[in-house]
Amino acid sequence: MYLERIEKENDIKKIPREHWDELADEIRDFLIQKLSVTGGHLAPNLGTVELTMALHLFLDLPEDKLIWDVGHQSYTHKILTGRRKGFDHLRQFGGMSGFPKTKESPCDTFNTGHSSTSISAGLGIAMARTIQGKKNTVVSVIGDGSLTGGMAYEALNNAGKADTDFIIVLNDNNMSISENVGGVSQYLNQIRTTEAYIGLKDGIKTRLSNIPRGKNMIQGIQKAKSSFKQLVIPGMYFEEMGLTYLGPVDGHDVSDMLRIFKEAKRVKGPVLVHVLTKKGKGYLPAERHPSRFHGTEPFEIATGVPAGKRTKPNYTDIFSTVMCKLGDRNPDVVAVTAAMPDGTGLKRFRNMYPDRFFDVGIAEGHAVTFAAGLAAGGMRPIVAIYSSFLQRAYDQIIHDVCIQNLPVVFAIDRAGLVGSDGETHQGIFDLSYLSSMPNMTIMSPKNKWELSDMLKFAVTYNGPIALRYPRGLAFEGLYEYRPPIVYGKSECIYREKDIALLAVGSMIPTAIEVRNRLKAQGISCTLVNARFVKPIDTELIDLLLPDHSLLVTLEENVASGGYGEKVRAYTDTLQTKTKVINICIPDCYVEHGSVDILRKELKIDAESVVQRILENWKE
Amino acid sequence: MYLERIEKENDIKKIPREHWDELADEIRDFLIQKLSVTGGHLAPNLGTVELTMALHLFLDLPEDKLIWDVGHQSYTHKILTGRRKGFDHLRQFGGMSGFPKTKESPCDTFNTGHSSTSISAGLGIAMARTIQGKKNTVVSVIGDGSLTGGMAYEALNNAGKADTDFIIVLNDNNMSISENVGGVSQYLNQIRTTEAYIGLKDGIKTRLSNIPRGKNMIQGIQKAKSSFKQLVIPGMYFEEMGLTYLGPVDGHDVSDMLRIFKEAKRVKGPVLVHVLTKKGKGYLPAERHPSRFHGTEPFEIATGVPAGKRTKPNYTDIFSTVMCKLGDRNPDVVAVTAAMPDGTGLKRFRNMYPDRFFDVGIAEGHAVTFAAGLAAGGMRPIVAIYSSFLQRAYDQIIHDVCIQNLPVVFAIDRAGLVGSDGETHQGIFDLSYLSSMPNMTIMSPKNKWELSDMLKFAVTYNGPIALRYPRGLAFEGLYEYRPPIVYGKSECIYREKDIALLAVGSMIPTAIEVRNRLKAQGISCTLVNARFVKPIDTELIDLLLPDHSLLVTLEENVASGGYGEKVRAYTDTLQTKTKVINICIPDCYVEHGSVDILRKELKIDAESVVQRILENWKE
Repeated sequence: MYLERIEKENDIKKIPREHWDELADEIRDFLIQKLSVTGGHLAPNLGTVELTMALHLFLDLPEDKLIWDVGHQSYTHKILTGRRKGFDHLRQFGGMSGFPKTKESPCDTFNTGHSSTSISAGLGIAMARTIQGKKNTVVSVIGDGSLTGGMAYEALNNAGKADTDFIIVLNDNNMSISENVGGVSQYLNQIRTTEAYIGLKDGIKTRLSNIPRGKNMIQGIQKAKSSFKQLVIPGMYFEEMGLTYLGPVDGHDVSDMLRIFKEAKRVKGPVLVHVLTKKGKGYLPAERHPSRFHGTEPFEIATGVPAGKRTKPNYTDIFSTVMCKLGDRNPDVVAVTAAMPDGTGLKRFRNMYPDRFFDVGIAEGHAVTFAAGLAAGGMRPIVAIYSSFLQRAYDQIIHDVCIQNLPVVFAIDRAGLVGSDGETHQGIFDLSYLSSMPNMTIMSPKNKWELSDMLKFAVTYNGPIALRYPRGLAFEGLYEYRPPIVYGKSECIYREKDIALLAVGSMIPTAIEVRNRLKAQGISCTLVNARFVKPIDTELIDLLLPDHSLLVTLEENVASGGYGEKVRAYTDTLQTKTKVINICIPDCYVEHGSVDILRKELKIDAESVVQRILENWKE
Repeated sequence: MYLERIEKENDIKKIPREHWDELADEIRDFLIQKLSVTGGHLAPNLGTVELTMALHLFLDLPEDKLIWDVGHQSYTHKILTGRRKGFDHLRQFGGMSGFPKTKESPCDTFNTGHSSTSISAGLGIAMARTIQGKKNTVVSVIGDGSLTGGMAYEALNNAGKADTDFIIVLNDNNMSISENVGGVSQYLNQIRTTEAYIGLKDGIKTRLSNIPRGKNMIQGIQKAKSSFKQLVIPGMYFEEMGLTYLGPVDGHDVSDMLRIFKEAKRVKGPVLVHVLTKKGKGYLPAERHPSRFHGTEPFEIATGVPAGKRTKPNYTDIFSTVMCKLGDRNPDVVAVTAAMPDGTGLKRFRNMYPDRFFDVGIAEGHAVTFAAGLAAGGMRPIVAIYSSFLQRAYDQIIHDVCIQNLPVVFAIDRAGLVGSDGETHQGIFDLSYLSSMPNMTIMSPKNKWELSDMLKFAVTYNGPIALRYPRGLAFEGLYEYRPPIVYGKSECIYREKDIALLAVGSMIPTAIEVRNRLKAQGISCTLVNARFVKPIDTELIDLLLPDHSLLVTLEENVASGGYGEKVRAYTDTLQTKTKVINICIPDCYVEHGSVDILRKELKIDAESVVQRILENWKE
C-alpha cells in the first residue's frame, strides 16, 4: 500500500519511480470505493490521476502554485496533500468540499467551481510572483472543455504576451461534461489523431524531425493543407497566440509528463503543455459513460448502476418532456445549452430536433447573445442554463436581450440551494440580478404541472422571460390547483386571514408545512403561490392587506433585490399597518451540504419560519 | 455632390463606380463637419467609410442582414440608409442614437453598444434564416479590438463548426479604443506586415501561389518558423477554428472589398474576411491621435483642438492623480484596465509604473479574475472599469473575488447616467448587482476630495470593495466637509429635523439644491452623504428616525436592489412612523441625451424631487 505512505504534500516524492503505477492504481481504487458511497465527480478524477501525480512530483507545494480549472478534478490533489480521510464526508455539510478551497489546505491556491478561470487566476498569481521577485513555479490546469469558454481565451491572449514564466497544462480528454463542441475542439482532435502525435509520443525532442522533405512536402501542402498544418507544428494555434507549445504527451504516463514539465520549466515565458487523458480512465462504466459519471450519485461498483434509483421525476425531467412537446407543436421553438445537454434535460430535444438544438460549449455569454440573434431572426429560443452559470451572461441578458425586449425564454435550472456542490453553485442570486433588469419577467413554478404550464406560457410571451426551478424532485403536491397562468398574477391557494405566506417556487412545500403548523396552533393562514416574481402581483397584495396583519415572503434567494424586498417596497408605500417579514438567504455564501441541512442552518426551514412568524405576530 | 443622391438604402448602387472615391470623400467631409459640432465617434467612422460602402454595394438591405460590433462605427451606415439629417441631433435627447437601433431603421438588425457581440448575434440570425429556409446573406462586422473579448472567441468557435452561410468581416485597424493588446493582436499584425499581404493584395486567387518551392522552403521553415506560417496561409489561426479565411484586403479600396465579399458569398459555410483599415483615415488629427478622436467632444476642424477646453478636473482626473500617488507609496498597488488606459485615467499610472500596470484588452471577465489572482498573490489590485462594462464580469466578481473575500478594489467610473451614449452605457445597475454579493463593500464619494480619501481607504481594506463615481466634472462643493472615512459610516452634513435626505455620490449636488429649496420654504432638512451603500449606516438611521418624519434616499441606480430599498428594508423592520421615499431610476432603459435633461425626464432632478417630497410630507 503506497497510498498510506502519503500523509502530506510532497510525500509522493518518496515513492520510488517503479511503484508509481501501483500508486495510481491505488488512488483509482480509493476514488471508486469512496465515491461509490458518497457520490462525486468520478470520471474527471479518474482521468487525472497520473497528471496530478506528475504535477506533484514536479512541483514543490505549497511554495509552487497549482491552480485547477473548475476544480472537480482535484480529488487526487486532495489525496496527495493529506486529505484522504476527508473523502468519508466528501461534499457533506461540515465535510470536505469537492472543489479546491484555500481554507482546506495551503496547497489549494485558488477556489474554483465555475469553468475557464484558471489561466486568468494563474496569470495573476504568476505576475504577482514576478513583481515580488520570487522564483516559484506557477501551473494552471485547464480542460479542453473549459477552453470553449471565452474567458480562457481572454486569458490565453494575455498570457501569450506576458513577460513571465507560467505553465498552462491543457488536460485534453476531448470532452466537456458532455461531448465537446466547436472548431477548437475539432482542431485539438486533429492533433490527437494526427501522425504527429503518434510519431512524437516520446516527448518533444523529436518534434520537428517529422517534417517531410523536398518535393513531397509541397505536394503534401497542396493535397492536404489541414493535416499538413498539424504535421509541421502541432499546437500552432497556441503558438500563434504567443505561447510555447509542448506536446501532445500521454496523460497516463507519469514519467513522460514529468519530463515534459521539466522541459516546460526551462522555457522562458508562457508555455502550454498539451496532455491527453481519458475521462473515466480505469473504471469501465465511467470510460463508457463519462458524461453520466461526470458527477455521480452513489453507485454499485460492480455494475456502475446508481445505488438509489430515482423513480419520481425531477424538474429537469419535466422540462425535458415539455420541451419535446413544444418542439413538435411550434416550429419556431429552438433550444440552446452551454455544454449541458444532459444536465439541462435537452438531450431528448436534441435527438428529436437536431436542427433546432444548439450546444454552444461552456460559453454562457455567447449562448445568450446567440439566442438574442435567433429571436431577432424570428425564432423562439429557450436558453437552458443553471442559475449560477447564467451569472456569466449577466451583461448579455441586459444588453442583447432585455434592451431590445426580445422574446428569449430563460429556463433556469438549479435555482435556489443546490446542496453538495457548495458556494460556487448555489443559485441564490438570480431573482436579484434578473429583477433589476427592465423588460424582464420572472416566474417560478410551485410544482411539476406548473412548470409545464409556465413553460408553455413563456414561449407565447413576447419579451424576455425567465423560469426558475430548483434541483431535485419535482413537487407533486397541490396537483388539484391548476388555474391558468395569467401574466403578473399570483395564485391564492388558501384564502384565510391574519397571516399570509407568499412563497416563491421551491419554497411552496415549506410554506405548506409552515401553514399546517400554524393551523395546528389555531392560527389562520393564507397561502399564496407567487408565480411571478417580476412583476409582483400588487392587486392581490392590496386585497390581502385589510385582513392580514403579517405578510411573510419566502424565497430561496438573497434578500437584496429579491422578491421579498419588492413586496416590502410596495407595501411600504401604502398607509398600511400590515407588517412584512422576508424569509430568504442571508447575506453570505452557502457552503456544501444537503439542502435540508442548509435550510435549517439558514433558518429558512419550516420550523425556523414558524418561530420567526410567532415572534413577529401578535393576534 | 453624390452624397445628396442617397436618400435611402441601396441608393448607393446608383452611383457609378468611377465616383465611389468622391462619395467616400464627401462622406468623410460630412462626418468631420457634423461631428465637429455635435461630437461623436469620429475616428472609428472615418476608418470604415469604404468598408461600409462596399458592404452596402454588396448587400440588399434590409433583406440581407448587417450586424455591427459595438456599433460606434455605424455612422456611414446611417448615412447610406437615409439618416443623414439625423446627424444634426446626433446623440442628443430625442435625436439620433450614435449606435445601431432597430427602431430607427429596418436596416439596423441588432442593437449594440458593448463589445464583441456581433458574431454571436449574427450567427443566431444566420441560423434562424437557415432553419426558416431563407437565402438572405448575413454579415457581422467585428473590429480586431473586439476580438480580444472572449465572447467573440466563443462565437468564432461555434461559427467555425456551424453548417450555415455566414460572413464575418474582421475590421482590423490594429487598435482597440487605445492600442491593442495580446497575442492575437500581435498575430494579426504579422499578417499585416508579412510579404504575404503585399503579394496577395489583389485578392485571394493568388493566395497559394506565393509558397516558395523546394529546398528554400525547408530552410525557410527551419530559419523562421513564424514568418513561414504566415507565408503559407495567412489566417491559419481562423482556419484552424473551422472558418474559411479570405484576405487580407485593403479596407480603403471599395472595388477590392466588393470582389472579396462576392467571393465570400460563393464559399459554403462560415467565412472570415480580413479587412485592413486605418482608424481616423482622411483627417490628419484623427489619424495621428486615433485614441483621442475615438469618441470626441466638439472640435475645431482646422486644428482638431476641442472647442470647449475643460479647465476643471473630472472624477477620472482625480482618480488618475491619486493612483499615481498610491503607486508611489505602496509597492503592492497594481492597476488593471480592460482596453481603456485613457478613459479610466490609468495612462499616467502606466507611464510611471509600467511593471505594475496591465491592459488586458476588452476582456472584463479576465480582468477581474486576473486581479483576483494578483490579490491571491499578495498584491493590491485596482480594477478600473466603467460601470456598464463591469456587467460583463458579474460572475467573476462573485465567484473569483467575493467568495474568497480577496482585497480587490473596483474603481467604477461612468456610474449613474452617462448621457449621450445611451441605453447600453448608462451605469444604473451597479449598486444593485454589487449589493447582492456577500462580502462586497460599496462606496460612493460626494466630491473630488472624497474620491481621493475613499480610494486611499479602499487600498487598505482587506476585502472586495467598490468605489463608484460618475462621468463628468468632479463636484467641488462641500470642500470644508472632510471627516475621515470610517467603514460603514455615513456623513451627516447638515443635521436638522423633519426631512432627511440620504444621497449617494452623484446625487449630492441635487440633494443640496433640494435642501436649499425646502429651506427657502421654511422646511428644515437634514442632509446625509451616504458614503457607504453597502453596508448601510443603520446607526445613523436609528438616530434620525425619532425626529424625522420623512427619509428620502437619492441614487442614480434602479430601484430594485439599490440603496433606497436597503434603507427601506431596514426601517421597515423597526416600529417607526417615519416614511421612506426612494428617488432612483425607474424600471426602464434610459436613452441618450444630456444628463441634465435625462434627470428631468426621469424625475430625479431637484425640482421633481422637491415636488415629490412636498406631496409626501405633512408637517
